[in-house]
Amino acid sequence: MIIVLKPGATQAEIDHVIEKIQAAGCTPHLSRGVERTIIGAIGDETAIRNLPLEILPGVDQVLPIMKPYKLVSREFKPESSVIGAGGVLLGGRRLHVMAGPCAVESREMLIGIARQVKAAGATVLRGGAFKPRTSPYAFQGLEAEGVRFLADARRETGLLVATELMDPRDLELLASSADFIQIGTRNMQNFRLLKEVGGVRNPVILKRGLAATIKDLLLSAEYIVANGNPNVILCERGIRTFEDYTRNTLDIAAVPAIKQLSHLPVIVDPSHAGGRRDLVRPLSLAALAAGADGLMIEVHHNPEEALSDGPQSLRPDGFAALMDELRRLAAFLGREL
Amino acid sequence: MIIVLKPGATQAEIDHVIEKIQAAGCTPHLSRGVERTIIGAIGDETAIRNLPLEILPGVDQVLPIMKPYKLVSREFKPESSVIGAGGVLLGGRRLHVMAGPCAVESREMLIGIARQVKAAGATVLRGGAFKPRTSPYAFQGLEAEGVRFLADARRETGLLVATELMDPRDLELLASSADFIQIGTRNMQNFRLLKEVGGVRNPVILKRGLAATIKDLLLSAEYIVANGNPNVILCERGIRTFEDYTRNTLDIAAVPAIKQLSHLPVIVDPSHAGGRRDLVRPLSLAALAAGADGLMIEVHHNPEEALSDGPQSLRPDGFAALMDELRRLAAFLGREL
Amino acid sequence: MIIVLKPGATQAEIDHVIEKIQAAGCTPHLSRGVERTIIGAIGDETAIRNLPLEILPGVDQVLPIMKPYKLVSREFKPESSVIGAGGVLLGGRRLHVMAGPCAVESREMLIGIARQVKAAGATVLRGGAFKPRTSPYAFQGLEAEGVRFLADARRETGLLVATELMDPRDLELLASSADFIQIGTRNMQNFRLLKEVGGVRNPVILKRGLAATIKDLLLSAEYIVANGNPNVILCERGIRTFEDYTRNTLDIAAVPAIKQLSHLPVIVDPSHAGGRRDLVRPLSLAALAAGADGLMIEVHHNPEEALSDGPQSLRPDGFAALMDELRRLAAFLGREL
Amino acid sequence: MIIVLKPGATQAEIDHVIEKIQAAGCTPHLSRGVERTIIGAIGDETAIRNLPLEILPGVDQVLPIMKPYKLVSREFKPESSVIGAGGVLLGGRRLHVMAGPCAVESREMLIGIARQVKAAGATVLRGGAFKPRTSPYAFQGLEAEGVRFLADARRETGLLVATELMDPRDLELLASSADFIQIGTRNMQNFRLLKEVGGVRNPVILKRGLAATIKDLLLSAEYIVANGNPNVILCERGIRTFEDYTRNTLDIAAVPAIKQLSHLPVIVDPSHAGGRRDLVRPLSLAALAAGADGLMIEVHHNPEEALSDGPQSLRPDGFAALMDELRRLAAFLGREL
Repeated sequence: MIIVLKPGATQAEIDHVIEKIQAAGCTPHLSRGVERTIIGAIGDETAIRNLPLEILPGVDQVLPIMKPYKLVSREFKPESSVIGAGGVLLGGRRLHVMAGPCAVESREMLIGIARQVKAAGATVLRGGAFKPRTSPYAFQGLEAEGVRFLADARRETGLLVATELMDPRDLELLASSADFIQIGTRNMQNFRLLKEVGGVRNPVILKRGLAATIKDLLLSAEYIVANGNPNVILCERGIRTFEDYTRNTLDIAAVPAIKQLSHLPVIVDPSHAGGRRDLVRPLSLAALAAGADGLMIEVHHNPEEALSDGPQSLRPDGFAALMDELRRLAAFLGREL
Repeated sequence: MIIVLKPGATQAEIDHVIEKIQAAGCTPHLSRGVERTIIGAIGDETAIRNLPLEILPGVDQVLPIMKPYKLVSREFKPESSVIGAGGVLLGGRRLHVMAGPCAVESREMLIGIARQVKAAGATVLRGGAFKPRTSPYAFQGLEAEGVRFLADARRETGLLVATELMDPRDLELLASSADFIQIGTRNMQNFRLLKEVGGVRNPVILKRGLAATIKDLLLSAEYIVANGNPNVILCERGIRTFEDYTRNTLDIAAVPAIKQLSHLPVIVDPSHAGGRRDLVRPLSLAALAAGADGLMIEVHHNPEEALSDGPQSLRPDGFAALMDELRRLAAFLGREL
Repeated sequence: MIIVLKPGATQAEIDHVIEKIQAAGCTPHLSRGVERTIIGAIGDETAIRNLPLEILPGVDQVLPIMKPYKLVSREFKPESSVIGAGGVLLGGRRLHVMAGPCAVESREMLIGIARQVKAAGATVLRGGAFKPRTSPYAFQGLEAEGVRFLADARRETGLLVATELMDPRDLELLASSADFIQIGTRNMQNFRLLKEVGGVRNPVILKRGLAATIKDLLLSAEYIVANGNPNVILCERGIRTFEDYTRNTLDIAAVPAIKQLSHLPVIVDPSHAGGRRDLVRPLSLAALAAGADGLMIEVHHNPEEALSDGPQSLRPDGFAALMDELRRLAAFLGREL
Repeated sequence: MIIVLKPGATQAEIDHVIEKIQAAGCTPHLSRGVERTIIGAIGDETAIRNLPLEILPGVDQVLPIMKPYKLVSREFKPESSVIGAGGVLLGGRRLHVMAGPCAVESREMLIGIARQVKAAGATVLRGGAFKPRTSPYAFQGLEAEGVRFLADARRETGLLVATELMDPRDLELLASSADFIQIGTRNMQNFRLLKEVGGVRNPVILKRGLAATIKDLLLSAEYIVANGNPNVILCERGIRTFEDYTRNTLDIAAVPAIKQLSHLPVIVDPSHAGGRRDLVRPLSLAALAAGADGLMIEVHHNPEEALSDGPQSLRPDGFAALMDELRRLAAFLGREL
């Protein structure tokens, strides 16, 4: 931590800052410049990070030096983590595509789509049983029944299953029925939920919040890991900006940036990022080219009748054609799909 | 709902759109222009809102006409709602200031601050027992014990109490111990929590999310009201932008904008909006001038030692001076504090 | 400047950084922590600011200590500047309102509006002769003829005149005909234009760019002052965010924030910030309450027929009523209008 | 144009809107719904677009139907445009990479870098003679001398040359010395400059503004084309968001989105988008995968000593290695580099 003093800071003010640093168990290191005096706090930055040093008299600004997360950082663990369930491991040479409908609408539709995405090469079936919808009047999901249908589809097709958790009271059900547990965009900073999924072993797919920086995303991942579950997969799915042609703005640079900062796998959700079916293909290709470890894609057998996210869902045949292209691109990039 | 067709849309495509509209129980209304054909869907827009009409062949864009929320809208209820608990009613001529520490740190400190903010004119004590913190290593609150201390402070001072709910499993405790239940910024779209607080009668202070539009905020309020609790107070507390001198960007126009769109009361949190103690005063004055029904202000007896949000907390004497100024401004504006 | 090294930085890498600092005429100051080595560069930070130190081997991050602007900073000049033309001085106790049509449409309309805004208490007539329009098919202004009409209105009414410069080739004309020269939002970082207006003495109203931080705005002001013209008035007029109910998001905190950082006067443009006539009043009141030194308000005798910005223009009678209210608020705030 | 009336709009208000529509030469088309009356204005939308219909009494909202740009739209010209100079044509099967230093620093360095980027496969040399810098104290470019050096480098290497125009007074010089004229991010809405480059035939590289939507970018391109120069190449280079790990946020979806909306070529600048040397490679690959027609990449022989943008510049050897990879990816994608 670096504390920069105001131009006219008095000796008493400097001494007061030094005392605070020492009281937190750190060692102060004074440097008097031509225009400014600067104090470094050497030692455990976590001890001092939450002190409101910026309001001490004479202090101009406080500059943290250390990253606020540790367990998820690449400094802590330089080699990339390979995380998954069953045989589906993300973060290695092999890429995975998770596909399926936005919402589970019926047993029949789910199993039908599951068969088709499996035939096309997907290894995980995605589908929401509990649906976070911005409107209270929109379809809210089949809930526990939807979870049963997912388990059925898993048994019928052999696909692993990923589904979203919205409430800590549903964790036990999901942890026992689903392979991957998804924490949605709007719950990325639902810290209670993060702590809860820290208590299970299922891999957690943590989606970036609409206004979350990469640092925020990694701090949320740190919550899960620090609470006991090291199996976190990060998902870039677009952030909110002023651009309104697309539903969100896919921050493609987040993929390599997260790879620099963290050892965790990163996947991309091109369906929510663009919000338009005709953008899924170019965004998927770009995601692989940028180094993503996998994709999560919405597929619906009849998007015109989808109860949720129809505009951004691929049809099964479109998905199969995309998978062919992605498979070739993966091979070109020295990976495998 | 208005459906705009592409320049070369065929009659078959037009007929297909018309069928979809009729199947949803609406009446289509065709209008052929020089360059475009447009179809209006007359009837209950909620029936048609979630249909993915934009992906029907020949469709260029879909323009909703109705607002997606109803119960919270001023069209539905033209007169302003006056909402509160005990004698503390927001939305009328009388303004209210909710004040207290970011986090409840101890029984003694809480009651001390409560006495001081009451003396200065606050009518509600704010204080977090359950704290949403971006870092898992930051102080997470005293939890149930903190709730007890809030109840103690309430008994000792007569102030009403507002505190944040983070988990549906804590609702029973908070609903019986606190007067106002706060839904924090990061849970504004935690739809399960919204539904749950729809099941109690306590007034809910709903804080705007970091990336939430005014429309999103009103939809979240609609969740609560549609689930049975009409007592919602909206809180503007800053949104996230590229500006980094302040912690967030206070969207002051949201105050009059929400007043145009909704009948619910609106308060402002200048502490979180600016994130700096020296901005609390100008932002508080601006909020009142813009028409806010109240303020929520962080006060700490010793900000240098605060376990959370020290940099933005006022000292009790600073708060008292600000209250004097706000009281005079309220009177000038024809209101009362 | 603080240079933070990576955990495993070698002595050779440290020496290389030290050499670079010395070569730039600064004194390195080394501090070895438990986890990190940090090097402070003591001396003239401007000499070192543009060096790409962050790409030197072993360097993790570079933290500037000094502000990148100087002449416009309050550190450089602690007392507030009072800037203006004729008797219209901004930045002191007296507030000023600049009012008039978005665009000069005819001599008659301009003089008519000028008389009305003067009667209501405005001291400066605003009106665009050169209009920056996002569409090439929108009315682009009367150009030189519009400047003449402004000069006529000035002579007829005694109001001072403010108008926008878009092209360095028009500077001579504007500098001799107008009192205040406005640099618009979209030209805030048109650095050539900034340099040019540094060469005249007219006060320059510099509007904040749509994506400009406060720091960017102050750097653009520094351009003007460093090039010879100390007379700069800053104007907050809304930034671009994801919120779409309003045209822009008025960053009300920018007013007190700029006052902390700079000695220059600050005004607010509530018309462009909200983009809606019904928001001009609350945003104007909020601006004064937050400490603005003045306002710039669009007034049109017949907004329904305005060639530009009709939706956000007040009618003269609405403007007069607002001025009465602002005059009383100014007095309440200890200022004068 | 669709005009939606308020629930209780009177017949007189409806008639007034109808009159306005007719006066603008359009045909009104009335549709009375259960809750709302809607009026379509059939005819030339440009005639009506700038009327402030939203403030007419009884009007709730106004929804434009047509896109505000025409000449640059794919509706106007369905086949993709192929635009360039010399043999360097963008928008077809062949991709092009423009490379070179941020700023021209000396004749010798420029020619040295030019030779190296040519050897690696670049077809255009980029280099700034006039530099827009946010600080007035940063290196502002060699100006006319820099333009001469670019011409020298062109003669020596046979590379075409692209350089930025900042001031209309420099257009004649640049139009005769450079092949491609660049309009920088901060001048994307410098409408005077746009009009001026509409008067020459050089292809214009138009960079997206920091807060510009895709629609804004296309409107700025429309300015150039409507003023007589059809040769516009659009450049996505990142927008400003709250994310601060990267310099800007590359909006990768803008590439396919622009391709849907416009016939003009699109290139990507990964250097400015990420602002970090280590992100240039993944962002370049992603850009090609998303369908970009070319790239603009900063290369410096000694980034540690670069007078501008050192942190994001590649060394010539790193650039050559990247070009090899891009060439193979282009071939994989069915294009050629």
